Amino acid sequence: MTGNAEKIITAAKAAYTQGARLVLTPELSICGYPPEDLLLRAAFIKACDEAVSHVALGLAQYPDLHVVVGHPQGSDVRTKSTAIQKRTNQATVLSSGKRVATYAKRELPNYQVFDERRYFTAGEAACVLDVCGTRVGLLICEDAWFDAPCQAAKAAGAQVLAVINASPFHVGKQAERIERMTDGALLTGLPLIYAHCVGGQDEIVFDGGSFALHSDGTLAGRAKSFAEEVWMVDWQASTVRPELVEGGVQDDLSDLWQALVLGVRDYVNKNGFPSIILGLSGGIDSALVLAIAVDALGSERVRCVMMPSPYTAEISWVDARDMAKRMNVRYDELSIIPEFEAFKASLSHEFIGLAEDATEENIQARIRGTLLMALSNKFGSIVLTTGNKSEMATGYCTLYGDMAGGFAVIKDVAKTTVFKLAHWRNQHDPFGTGAQPIPERIITRPPSAELRADQTDQDSLPPYEVLDAILERYMENDQSIEEILAAGFAAADVERVTKLIKINEYKRRQAPIGIRVTHRSFGKDWRYPITSKFRA
Amino acid sequence: MTGNAEKIITAAKAAYTQGARLVLTPELSICGYPPEDLLLRAAFIKACDEAVSHVALGLAQYPDLHVVVGHPQGSDVRTKSTAIQKRTNQATVLSSGKRVATYAKRELPNYQVFDERRYFTAGEAACVLDVCGTRVGLLICEDAWFDAPCQAAKAAGAQVLAVINASPFHVGKQAERIERMTDGALLTGLPLIYAHCVGGQDEIVFDGGSFALHSDGTLAGRAKSFAEEVWMVDWQASTVRPELVEGGVQDDLSDLWQALVLGVRDYVNKNGFPSIILGLSGGIDSALVLAIAVDALGSERVRCVMMPSPYTAEISWVDARDMAKRMNVRYDELSIIPEFEAFKASLSHEFIGLAEDATEENIQARIRGTLLMALSNKFGSIVLTTGNKSEMATGYCTLYGDMAGGFAVIKDVAKTTVFKLAHWRNQHDPFGTGAQPIPERIITRPPSAELRADQTDQDSLPPYEVLDAILERYMENDQSIEEILAAGFAAADVERVTKLIKINEYKRRQAPIGIRVTHRSFGKDWRYPITSKFRA
Repeated sequence: MTGNAEKIITAAKAAYTQGARLVLTPELSICGYPPEDLLLRAAFIKACDEAVSHVALGLAQYPDLHVVVGHPQGSDVRTKSTAIQKRTNQATVLSSGKRVATYAKRELPNYQVFDERRYFTAGEAACVLDVCGTRVGLLICEDAWFDAPCQAAKAAGAQVLAVINASPFHVGKQAERIERMTDGALLTGLPLIYAHCVGGQDEIVFDGGSFALHSDGTLAGRAKSFAEEVWMVDWQASTVRPELVEGGVQDDLSDLWQALVLGVRDYVNKNGFPSIILGLSGGIDSALVLAIAVDALGSERVRCVMMPSPYTAEISWVDARDMAKRMNVRYDELSIIPEFEAFKASLSHEFIGLAEDATEENIQARIRGTLLMALSNKFGSIVLTTGNKSEMATGYCTLYGDMAGGFAVIKDVAKTTVFKLAHWRNQHDPFGTGAQPIPERIITRPPSAELRADQTDQDSLPPYEVLDAILERYMENDQSIEEILAAGFAAADVERVTKLIKINEYKRRQAPIGIRVTHRSFGKDWRYPITSKFRA
Repeated sequence: MTGNAEKIITAAKAAYTQGARLVLTPELSICGYPPEDLLLRAAFIKACDEAVSHVALGLAQYPDLHVVVGHPQGSDVRTKSTAIQKRTNQATVLSSGKRVATYAKRELPNYQVFDERRYFTAGEAACVLDVCGTRVGLLICEDAWFDAPCQAAKAAGAQVLAVINASPFHVGKQAERIERMTDGALLTGLPLIYAHCVGGQDEIVFDGGSFALHSDGTLAGRAKSFAEEVWMVDWQASTVRPELVEGGVQDDLSDLWQALVLGVRDYVNKNGFPSIILGLSGGIDSALVLAIAVDALGSERVRCVMMPSPYTAEISWVDARDMAKRMNVRYDELSIIPEFEAFKASLSHEFIGLAEDATEENIQARIRGTLLMALSNKFGSIVLTTGNKSEMATGYCTLYGDMAGGFAVIKDVAKTTVFKLAHWRNQHDPFGTGAQPIPERIITRPPSAELRADQTDQDSLPPYEVLDAILERYMENDQSIEEILAAGFAAADVERVTKLIKINEYKRRQAPIGIRVTHRSFGKDWRYPITSKFRA
């Protein structure tokens, strides 16, 4: 809270110096979004309120400056076990040390990752503010996705719409936002300024890219994505004249890479971890996560450990060493054979007469998890897990084994996208940490968990192109088995994938959080019961 | 769905035979509560609809019978990325093979464990049904906690209120419900029938105990708690004449025991596990969980494993063996020493010159977790974890170690309550599985994790009476640090406990689900960010 307040004061002063008289900060800029159940604590609301006053006072010496901050306000009224909410998601205008106007969000999203109706009561009135003779209509995020709040602002005299936002990233979201805001501009015939936040907050990444639209809905300009900045927009009468964006529109893979890097950087830094540790297997998932980690924090803060077993192929060793060298990170090898032998001996009496199966595969993965966690416990590094979305969906991963760690970087990246990202990163070096970091053979060899002899992923799963396509339809888009069959997929594949998704719910429930990059991740936007007989 | 539909048909026929002409089943009785994101699937809604028709047809031969079933209805309308819900939580009256009336829930809870506004749109109209000349006003759960829906039913001509419910258990909830329903009866001057469900669904337990109130708000009678039954209520004009409850009101510890037993039994059986395995340490938590497991499933389906280390006290062995014998369960011993030695040797180069610390303690816990999971993987048993709420709060437990397992039985039971429950169980044998199952010394010895020499819990934590009192105030009741200090707790204790609660959020996020028995558990009703600087 104090950190955000200070950041707002500093940015507002810088903006004022460059000529700004209205400064917009994002939705809930005082406390960050989403504060979740912290909102239920009276002490949290009070601290937010004090931070708002602190910002107001910190800018009191600029009487012609208006600063819009986002913050929660009010508290809930409890009658026995029922809570009746009178808490609002607020945008307050600060000027001359005082709160000169305030607006309560009217449209409260309660779908996907959003739970705003758990915390907030909807506002009912428009708020239009006079800044240097221009009447500015305030809106908060979801408000601008609906007609009524936009029209109400216009009816109340707005000449320009100012929308403060906290809009979670997913691939393609930037275009969706601009399209929807264009509707709002066209509906009202008003120019629109969209102020957005930047940064990672647990599983969510905010991608910045604030923008301004002319009253005819055309894009006037856009701020940088994935970077904080003070972005200036001039307006006169009915036109906006923003600074142009540097660099222009990026492609989806570039956005995705930036989101993953920002997500890791903010999770690790905001939670105070000095460094990262991860298991490198010689496969593509851990290679990709290593490259993301180095782009996020630099090679000095990343170390990796190769933990070979008797099933580890020669090329896995060679490629892991090669990759670590290319990325210039500390690399160690720890054999898991002694622990594996010890476990097998302890269990030999229990398992007498029984063939080896997934049990022994899981033991290997759990030894690796225990070794990484021991290094984490001793040195304070966070363990990054390296499983992808296709694995999380089908349970092709070991609970307390390769799933052990603090942050699951690519848990929302399907395997087919993992390949695309690896190629992309080998062709681009966006943070200057090293060209072509991933040895080509890591990308081209058939994926294998290397937990038994001659194992490949395709022994247990449909081809990834098929798996990922079914996953997208069933899990991301709620299609039924019937609809997927009608699209031409083989019944056996659809049956297998959807069954695996269902029976592995318990595993996902114990997975570390990870970065959401699609419109439906296995996170806050996937709330399935474990106990359920339904599947269709 | 099919299972519930068949159960409803069977119960309705039995009730009809006993003279019933109106049969109430619980809220969402067709699919169970809460279905969570299954509600977003069109195929799920369709399957529910088919199940409703199946029930209607299955009872078509009883033309004077009315059956009320609960089910979701309708679908959401999506406009770009925004979902507008037109789905309702419905009570439909079936008679003569047809749907003769239907009612949409008006008050949608969206607090604690509830997310109904994520899925449902509120209904607006009352629904009054004529059954054999009596006009019955239908209400669904939360509706009856508010005045307006009760008054609307009366205004529409109701002579009796029939409320179908799915109301999660916590200790004391039964009294809260009766108190609130009494308000509804008094407000309207109508008798009220409260029909409730029974059973465990993931972390939630429904405790049954349907009841009927006279029009003056006095309790007319109550059905059994924690057991399914067809419970008959006569009514004539303005009075209800239910069967009396067997056994009368139970105390809190008895209710709590029943809830834990039912929660385990339903989670294990509904998810198809043949048996249970758990680690027995000679301490009170695992002793209590063993007793609950045996009461839930019988001694033949429960086995336990003692996994001693060099730090295991002689009395732990003796008491664990004694307890297993008293409970008549399979008991084995597996030393973790060889694995511990192997891990220490593998890491000796990494840890050279560094003192032993929590790292080595965690390795021991993780070896135990890996052994239990290996037995689970090989034989299909579910591992029950044995950590209590005080440990979950303070992180006094090892991720992937003692936290490894499928179901955390006592994760919502604070340590001071663990002691009370152990005493209670030694004085009662509610399922006839064995008197005094817990050796007295397990209850009286000072708690210890036994992960280093001469360790006790109180080396790391405040006394449990203090810890649990702070936990209840801070975590269950959202009190601020200031308020807790004002209540007379020592600053150092409050600081330590609240800090531990905060920094262990990441651990809880990867914990198995467990049974909710308080009004705030570390489950769906505790939604805190991991990344946050706030603490007050």
